[in-house]
Amino acid sequence: MNRFKITELGNDVFWLRDSEREHLVRVLRLKPGDMVVGFDNKTGMEYTSVIQKIEDSSVTCRILSADQPDVEAHTSVYLVAGLSKGEKMEWVIQKGTELGMEGLTPLRTKRSVMQLEGSKAQDRVVRWQKIASEAAKQSHRVQEPVISKVCDWRDLAEQLPPDTQWLIPYEEELTQRLASVLKSLDPKRPIAILIGPEGGFDPTEVAFAQEKLGAQSVSLGPRILRTETAAVATLTMVLAHFGDLG
Amino acid sequence: MNRFKITELGNDVFWLRDSEREHLVRVLRLKPGDMVVGFDNKTGMEYTSVIQKIEDSSVTCRILSADQPDVEAHTSVYLVAGLSKGEKMEWVIQKGTELGMEGLTPLRTKRSVMQLEGSKAQDRVVRWQKIASEAAKQSHRVQEPVISKVCDWRDLAEQLPPDTQWLIPYEEELTQRLASVLKSLDPKRPIAILIGPEGGFDPTEVAFAQEKLGAQSVSLGPRILRTETAAVATLTMVLAHFGDLG
Repeated sequence: MNRFKITELGNDVFWLRDSEREHLVRVLRLKPGDMVVGFDNKTGMEYTSVIQKIEDSSVTCRILSADQPDVEAHTSVYLVAGLSKGEKMEWVIQKGTELGMEGLTPLRTKRSVMQLEGSKAQDRVVRWQKIASEAAKQSHRVQEPVISKVCDWRDLAEQLPPDTQWLIPYEEELTQRLASVLKSLDPKRPIAILIGPEGGFDPTEVAFAQEKLGAQSVSLGPRILRTETAAVATLTMVLAHFGDLG
Repeated sequence: MNRFKITELGNDVFWLRDSEREHLVRVLRLKPGDMVVGFDNKTGMEYTSVIQKIEDSSVTCRILSADQPDVEAHTSVYLVAGLSKGEKMEWVIQKGTELGMEGLTPLRTKRSVMQLEGSKAQDRVVRWQKIASEAAKQSHRVQEPVISKVCDWRDLAEQLPPDTQWLIPYEEELTQRLASVLKSLDPKRPIAILIGPEGGFDPTEVAFAQEKLGAQSVSLGPRILRTETAAVATLTMVLAHFGDLG
């Protein structure tokens, strides 16, 4: 059954507007009588429903049953991804959403080849949010991860909750393994994973993360991983450690 | 420093031929005096060396120092991947190699949209092996994972060692989680992860895997993962459980 993010919830109905309505009407070409699942991004509720009415600006769906599926991760894990080239950001956002991340912050780093400023940055974030939205639906999540604006290092601290526990996988970290640091993390506090761009982090960036964010640098093991592999693997290992995957 | 798979090892030298020579001469355009790392796929040895001589059919490199880096996973984990469309197979082979898989067997499954037979299958395997080769070099491995011929279910048992422990992530498995099954696995025996194509496995295929291969079906958690995400996430979780990642 197709899944949609509810625009507005009523008593026995909900409404889909804007891009959700567009998608239903123009792409999927659903009709009154078709069944759909609507999910509420804020409450985690899921409503199995039937399309009642399609109008110019909204679709009305009549709720048949409600559920609160335990599909979201219980640990809040964020990715902070150094801007990387080509489709890598899209892959990480898509796979990160399927795996269960809470959100992703794109980060300008010293070695990022890809530059993003002004309206170009805003447009890209809108596109990335759409990818997160589609991936959330495909994986049957009831919460869509938020893709934040593109940040610089100095904006980072305020981007995430103040009690966030920061991890920075770093190929120059030779002694402290992720596995050992995981044991010291508190699953009730948010966790943020800083992933470098293709060239990795500059040592000054790692120092900044350690001093200003209290980040722990960790090794992911002896093999060198591409940026997008590191993002997906670290997210997987953190979520799996707390029972949210696997 | 660029890395190459040694074609033949001598006393103080090694030779690079065929595609390794081609890559060095035509693509990277290295010259006598340049330093390279040669690794021996069979022994796991790594040789830092200097290019001595470039001839029509071989490159001679003089060995300066030898090392046996502990870069390979200690657990042998194989992926058996149902044929999937587009670039997914390439993506899984590349990331699977970086993460540390031992090898990958492409598998024809009932719901595979992609069909591969005869010489087309052989050509594709040659291309996939090249991807594994490049990824092994990029991640500084000293062993290149083997991409086997494309198999059918009835060929599978003989494709891998007889004491292989088979896992089959399956979205219809609601009770047995991967995390609990991992505890029962023996890291000294090979482990094979069966990943379905885009449509997932047919129930008869899961039954075959359970009955003929002794496969344990496992849930990866509540969210639905794409085939390539499931491959990479399961491989990550298995390797991390045994300390080979993270």
